Amino acid sequence: MTIYNAPIQDHMFMMFDVLGVDKHSNIPGFEDLTPDLTNAVLEEAGKLASEVLHPLNQSGDEQGCTWDNGVVTTPDGFKEAYKLYCQSGWQSLTSSPDYGGQGLPQTLGLAVSEMMIASNWGFGMYPGLTKGATEAIAAHASDELKDTYLPKMMSGEWSGTMNLTEPHCGTDLGLLRTKAEPQGDGTFKVTGTKIFISAGEHDLTENIIHLVLAKIPGGPEGSRGISLFIVPKFILDADGNPGERNGVSCGSLEKKMGIHSNSTCVMNYDDAVGYLVGEEHKGLLAMFTMMNEARLGVGMQGLAIAEVAYQNAAVYTNERLQGRAISGKKNEDGPADPIIVHPDVRRMMMTSRAFTEGARGLALWMGLQVDLLQRHPDEDVREKAEDLVGLLTPVIKAYFTDMGVEVTSLSQQCYGGHGYIREHGMEQFARDARIAPIYEGTNGIQAMDLVGRKLGAKNGAAVQAFMALVQDNVAANADNDQLAPLAKGLGNALQHLQQATMWMMQNGMTNPDNAGAGAVDYLRIMALVGMGHVWLMQAQTAAEKLAEGGANEPYMKNKLITARFFFERMLPDTIAHLAKLEAGAESTMALKAEAF
Amino acid sequence: MTIYNAPIQDHMFMMFDVLGVDKHSNIPGFEDLTPDLTNAVLEEAGKLASEVLHPLNQSGDEQGCTWDNGVVTTPDGFKEAYKLYCQSGWQSLTSSPDYGGQGLPQTLGLAVSEMMIASNWGFGMYPGLTKGATEAIAAHASDELKDTYLPKMMSGEWSGTMNLTEPHCGTDLGLLRTKAEPQGDGTFKVTGTKIFISAGEHDLTENIIHLVLAKIPGGPEGSRGISLFIVPKFILDADGNPGERNGVSCGSLEKKMGIHSNSTCVMNYDDAVGYLVGEEHKGLLAMFTMMNEARLGVGMQGLAIAEVAYQNAAVYTNERLQGRAISGKKNEDGPADPIIVHPDVRRMMMTSRAFTEGARGLALWMGLQVDLLQRHPDEDVREKAEDLVGLLTPVIKAYFTDMGVEVTSLSQQCYGGHGYIREHGMEQFARDARIAPIYEGTNGIQAMDLVGRKLGAKNGAAVQAFMALVQDNVAANADNDQLAPLAKGLGNALQHLQQATMWMMQNGMTNPDNAGAGAVDYLRIMALVGMGHVWLMQAQTAAEKLAEGGANEPYMKNKLITARFFFERMLPDTIAHLAKLEAGAESTMALKAEAF
Repeated sequence: MTIYNAPIQDHMFMMFDVLGVDKHSNIPGFEDLTPDLTNAVLEEAGKLASEVLHPLNQSGDEQGCTWDNGVVTTPDGFKEAYKLYCQSGWQSLTSSPDYGGQGLPQTLGLAVSEMMIASNWGFGMYPGLTKGATEAIAAHASDELKDTYLPKMMSGEWSGTMNLTEPHCGTDLGLLRTKAEPQGDGTFKVTGTKIFISAGEHDLTENIIHLVLAKIPGGPEGSRGISLFIVPKFILDADGNPGERNGVSCGSLEKKMGIHSNSTCVMNYDDAVGYLVGEEHKGLLAMFTMMNEARLGVGMQGLAIAEVAYQNAAVYTNERLQGRAISGKKNEDGPADPIIVHPDVRRMMMTSRAFTEGARGLALWMGLQVDLLQRHPDEDVREKAEDLVGLLTPVIKAYFTDMGVEVTSLSQQCYGGHGYIREHGMEQFARDARIAPIYEGTNGIQAMDLVGRKLGAKNGAAVQAFMALVQDNVAANADNDQLAPLAKGLGNALQHLQQATMWMMQNGMTNPDNAGAGAVDYLRIMALVGMGHVWLMQAQTAAEKLAEGGANEPYMKNKLITARFFFERMLPDTIAHLAKLEAGAESTMALKAEAF
Repeated sequence: MTIYNAPIQDHMFMMFDVLGVDKHSNIPGFEDLTPDLTNAVLEEAGKLASEVLHPLNQSGDEQGCTWDNGVVTTPDGFKEAYKLYCQSGWQSLTSSPDYGGQGLPQTLGLAVSEMMIASNWGFGMYPGLTKGATEAIAAHASDELKDTYLPKMMSGEWSGTMNLTEPHCGTDLGLLRTKAEPQGDGTFKVTGTKIFISAGEHDLTENIIHLVLAKIPGGPEGSRGISLFIVPKFILDADGNPGERNGVSCGSLEKKMGIHSNSTCVMNYDDAVGYLVGEEHKGLLAMFTMMNEARLGVGMQGLAIAEVAYQNAAVYTNERLQGRAISGKKNEDGPADPIIVHPDVRRMMMTSRAFTEGARGLALWMGLQVDLLQRHPDEDVREKAEDLVGLLTPVIKAYFTDMGVEVTSLSQQCYGGHGYIREHGMEQFARDARIAPIYEGTNGIQAMDLVGRKLGAKNGAAVQAFMALVQDNVAANADNDQLAPLAKGLGNALQHLQQATMWMMQNGMTNPDNAGAGAVDYLRIMALVGMGHVWLMQAQTAAEKLAEGGANEPYMKNKLITARFFFERMLPDTIAHLAKLEAGAESTMALKAEAF
C-alpha cells in the first residue's frame, strides 16, 4: 500500500548546485563524477529501491525472519533482491578499488544508501553492516586478512556483522566477558554470548564474517583489555572457500518492536576460531572506526524513514477529503477539501519536509567531508574535514534519528485513525524508526561523546572551526534582501551555540554533571545550527538559480519557502534549549536514586 | 515482566493537601469523602489494578482479540477480570444514584481511572466506553430510554460504544452516510458501516448498547442533519432482557499498532432497530457531551501510560549496572554503577516524573472543576467551572497524550536495546500510547477547538478567567524566598500566553490560517502554563508542609525538587512556541498542494 520515489532532484541540487562536487575532480573517485553519471547512478538506485526493495517492505515486516534450530530464514523475496543488489554493484559502490570496489565518493554512497533504507530499512541493514565491517577490516587488519576477506565482502558474496553487546553490557564494553584464548598458531578460540547482533545469521550469503570484541586472558582490566577478532561462520579452506563450520551459532531471534525483516540474533561462540584484527587489546579503537561509519549510517536511517513516511503522507493528505479550508472551499465540486488545505496538516507536512531536505543537505555535506578526510591530497584539508566529521557525527546520529521518529509520527498523525492500522504501513514506519535513537550508541551517549570528547578535543578547534564556517555564511548573506531574515535567524542561533559552548566550557569543567545534564540540549542546538547552515546554503543557491532564470523554477521557489519555514518554525527551539542547559544539573541530580 | 504500583500518596496529596476536596462537603457526593475513605477506595482500586489487571496486560497484547464469523473473543482472563471489576463496583463509582450509581465525585473517579488504564489500557477501554455512553444517554435520552438502559450499563452488566467514524469520514462527520429510516412506531431502522469502533463486539457482557450517529432521510445537509440512536446488540424483550438479535454485526477486527486487547471493529448495521436519543438532527450536540467526557478520559490515558512506563524505567535504571558516575563511583563494590547515576538518564527520568506528577495535579484539579460544574449548588460557580473545563479539555487531551508518547519513549530509551525487545514490555507501552493523540479528535483538532471555538467564546471570558487565576497564583508566591524563582518562571510563561492570546485575537481574525497554523503552539503554551500553575500550587503546599515539620518529609522535598525541574527544564519551551506562532501562516501555507 505504501509508495517510495527516490528524491533524485534534491540529491542532484545539493551535490552539484550547492556543494559543487564536480569541482573536486582532483580527488580520487571524483574524476568521473559528472552530473550525467551521477544522475544515471541515482536513477538506477532509485529504480531498485522503488521497484524491488520497497514492494518487500510490508510483507517483510509481516513475515519477519524465522529461526529453526539455528537456521535463520529471511522473508520471501529477500534472497533474490539481495542477489540483484550485489550483482548490480551496489555493495561495492564506494569500496576500495584495491579489493574490487568501485571507489566512488562516499557522498554518492550516502545518497544511494538513503534510497535503500527508505525503501526497505530491514533489508538495507544487511548490506549496511557488511559495509561497516569491511571498513574496520580495511583500516585495521593485516594485509593477509584483508586479502582473504575484503574482496568477497565488498562484492557482497559474504556479509559482515558487529558483535559488541552482551546480556549485561552494552554501552559499558569494559564489562564484557567473551574470551579469546590464543592457540599458539596465531589464531584464537573465542567463547561467549553476544546479543542484539543484527544480521548475525541469515540465508542471504554463503558465509558470514563476524567481527567480535573479546578479552584475551591476562590482558588489562576494563575497556583497555578488549581485542577485535574476525570469526567466520565457515572457516575458509586452503583455497579460501567456506569450509568447515566454525563454533558459532545463532541461539535465537529477538522479538522486536520493528525492523522485523532483519534478524536480531543471540550469537553463541563456543571455541570458535578467530583471527586478531589489529593489535591485542586495541580492539575498541578498531571498533570505533566501524562505529563512526555506522553512526553516520544510522543517521541516514533517520532521514530515510522520515522521507518515505513524508512521501506517503503527501499522497494521503492530497487524496483524503475531509472538512473545508478555513479560507474558503478549495475543491468546489467535491464533498470536502483534501486535508492538505488545513493549516495544522500543513504544519506537520512542512516540518517533515524542512527536516528531510535540510537533513539531506547536511548529510551530503558531511559525506563530502568524509571524502575529503579519506582522499584529499592536502593534509590540512584532511585534518579540517576530520575535525568536522568527528564533531558532527554524534550530532547527525542523534538529531536525525530523533527527528526520524518525530517526522514519522507526524506523517502517521496526518492519516488519523488510518495511521494506526497496519495495512496503511505508517505504523510500521513508526515502529522501525524507533530503533535508531537506541542502537549504535543511544542518543544520550552521542550527546556525551559530543560534549565530553569532541568539544574539548584540540582545545576546541573543531567547534571553533564549525562556528567560524557558520559565521562566514551568515556574513555572506546578511546584506541580501531576500536572505537577510534567514541569515539573521541563523546568526541568533549561532549566538546561542556560542553562549552554550562557553557555558559548557566554564561549568562542565567545575562540575561534570552540568555537562551531562545539558548534553542533549547542547547537541540539539548544534544540530539546529548545522541544519540552518545548510538551509542557508540551499536558499542562497536557489535564489541565485531563480535570478539566473533557469529551469526548475517551481523547485527553487519551493526551496526558498521551505527554507523560510525552517527558520521561522524550527530554528527558534535553540533559545529554549539554551535556557534549559543554563539551568545546570542541580534539579536534575538532586533526587536520591531510590526516590524514583 | 512489567510492574505497576498505584501512586496513591500522590493522589492523596493532590486531592487533600493541595485541592482540599474535603472542604467541599456541601456538594453531593463529597459528603463522605474523608481522607480515610478516599485512601481505602484508592487502595482497593490499586490492588485490582496491580494484582488482577496488570498481569493480563502483556498477555493481552500478545494474544489480542480474535474474530470468528462475527464472534469476538477477548484475551484469556479478561472475562473474569471484567466480572470482578463490575462486581467490586468500579463501573458505577461516579454514576448517578438515580440509576444505581454510587455518585462519588469525578475527581475520585479520575484517580481510579488512571490506575485502571495504567495497569491495562486495552482492558480499561471497555468500561471507559460504557461510562461515556451512559453520560450521553443520561444527558440527552428520554426518561424511558434512561430507565431502560442506564441501570444495567452503570453496573457494567451491559457495555456501551460510540459509533461515529465511517470509512470516508472521521473528523468531518457531515459526510456520514449511515441512514436511519423512521418506522412510524417511534423506532428507526439503521443501515450503514461504521469503522474503528472500540469494543464494538466482545464476549464480556450479555448485551452491547451502541450509540450510533446516522442521518434521517430528508433532514438538513451536513452536520446539522445528524441524529443519535441507541442500537442494542440484542433487542430487549418485554421484560427488559436481551432477546432477539438486532441487525448489527462485527464484520472484522482491525490489525493495529497497539491496544491489541481491545477490539477495534468494523460494524455493519443492516436494518438494525434504533431508538432516537434526544431530538432529531441534534445528534452531534449529544455526541459532544460524550466526547468532552471521553476527551478528558483520553487525556488520562496519556498520563497513565506515562506513569506505568516511568515506574518500570525507575526499576530498570536502579538495577542496570553500566558505566561509572562522572562525579565518582557510586556502587564501589559492584562492577559498575546503576545507570540512574548518569545525568542524561536523570534528565529523562525527571522529565517523566515532572510530567506525571504535574499532569496528575492538573487532571485532579480539572476533575474538581467537573464536579463543581455538575453538582455545585451555586450557578456562578457552575458556570465558571464549565468555562474552565471547556477551555482546558482540548488542552489536556492533546498535551497529555503527546506527552504520553514522549514519556513512554523516554522510558523506553532508558532501557537501551532492551527497550526495543518485546519481553520487557516497554515497546508495548510505546505502541499503545500512540493511539491517544489520534482518537477522540486528533490533537490538531483539539488545537483548532481551543483556538477556533473556546478562545473566543463569551468574548474570551474563559481564557481571561484562567489567566487571572494563574496571575493570582504568581502574585501569591512572588515574595516567598523559596518559591519566588518558580513564581517568576510561571509569570514569564503567563506573559507568553497573554502575548500569544493577543496575537491570536489580532491575527487570527484577519487571516484564519494564522490561527490554524499557530494553534498547536498556542495549545502547548497554555498546557505548560496550566502545568506550571498546578506545579506552583503543589510546591507551595509542599513548602508549607515542610515548614510545619510533619510526616512525609522526603516526599515533600522531592516535590519541591521535581517542581524546580519542571520550571527549569520544561517550562522554557513557551518562548520557542511563541516565536513560532508569531511567525504567522505564510511559510506554512505557501506551497501548492501538489508540491508536497
